[in-house]
Amino acid sequence: MGNKSWTTPGASRDAQREGKRRAVLQAGARLFNDQGYEQTSLEEIATALNITKRTIYYYVDSKEDILFGCHLLGLEFLGETMAQSQDQSLPVMERIALLIRGYCAWVSTDFGATIAMVREQSLSADRRTALRASKAEVDFQLRSLISEGIAESSLRPCDPRLVAAVVFGALNWIPHWNRVENPVPQEDIAEQYLQLVFQGMVPAQS
Amino acid sequence: MGNKSWTTPGASRDAQREGKRRAVLQAGARLFNDQGYEQTSLEEIATALNITKRTIYYYVDSKEDILFGCHLLGLEFLGETMAQSQDQSLPVMERIALLIRGYCAWVSTDFGATIAMVREQSLSADRRTALRASKAEVDFQLRSLISEGIAESSLRPCDPRLVAAVVFGALNWIPHWNRVENPVPQEDIAEQYLQLVFQGMVPAQS
Repeated sequence: MGNKSWTTPGASRDAQREGKRRAVLQAGARLFNDQGYEQTSLEEIATALNITKRTIYYYVDSKEDILFGCHLLGLEFLGETMAQSQDQSLPVMERIALLIRGYCAWVSTDFGATIAMVREQSLSADRRTALRASKAEVDFQLRSLISEGIAESSLRPCDPRLVAAVVFGALNWIPHWNRVENPVPQEDIAEQYLQLVFQGMVPAQS
Repeated sequence: MGNKSWTTPGASRDAQREGKRRAVLQAGARLFNDQGYEQTSLEEIATALNITKRTIYYYVDSKEDILFGCHLLGLEFLGETMAQSQDQSLPVMERIALLIRGYCAWVSTDFGATIAMVREQSLSADRRTALRASKAEVDFQLRSLISEGIAESSLRPCDPRLVAAVVFGALNWIPHWNRVENPVPQEDIAEQYLQLVFQGMVPAQS
């Protein structure tokens, strides 16, 4: 990313600043995902944006601030998915499918991948607690949907905690293998994941 | 771990040294898994063993050497699982089950968890390549078994690459949530995972 995209013509001062802060977070997310959080310096993030390290401090306080900002933006996007899957007028399976498709799309973004790839230890204790609470909410949502499905017999009896762990493990793994030159389209991944999680590998006995 | 376990009474000099080197790797693996590789110093590993940093250098060259040693020991253990699942006299589903149960047991060990939790970027390029090759072998083994199952119609048509990604994602996720005071027994995890992966969440239409 060159200096071209650094300034948005015609935008207000606040919007400029917000846009630039976002560009800093995005460049940070990409580098964290590609080469690791610990392996990335603020200097490198500035270089990727073609700005100085001094300029970067106008938008963020520290590298950890960038990481936390990435997480907040990532979670914002996930909020929409959460809301959709809470629509009680839809069948449970459809709500689970919405959650899995949405999470798959999310984890395929730079910000979503950062949450899935960077270990919580890189954040301060306070911020780690906040992040954990948000992650726990998504987990709780899926577990609740599974429990609801079991109660109404539309799903097999199972341990919702372990099944949710399979689903989120599989989804969080995506950026580890699919950040390549020709990635598998995330829509294809979601459909294959849904087929497996709903129907399993073994054909029904006929 | 105190100094008590540092020396094994009656063992030969070579066995002593090997035992101590292993103790260093184990202490390293535990700390890497609990607090992160980057967040752990050689000093802390020495302290955990109640030895000096100078003593640790008699067994390993660097922190990265410990990490790579953990990986090698982890992969050794996984080798047995790989061999079992290659037994052509067993049905494909049983061989897949063996691989999943074995990997689940493995990823629940300190060394296995290290491979699942520490990002490859922490290793030097050469060692990263070696580790990737070993991981690719396990992945290839599961994909081959799935392809074999599809060919003989004991499994539904699917994309073996994506289904293997679900399985390994779910398995590699285990140490991220199950390294707690009262962990779910790994045998229970494996059985629930197998049920989900084979049968899916949705009951067969009757």
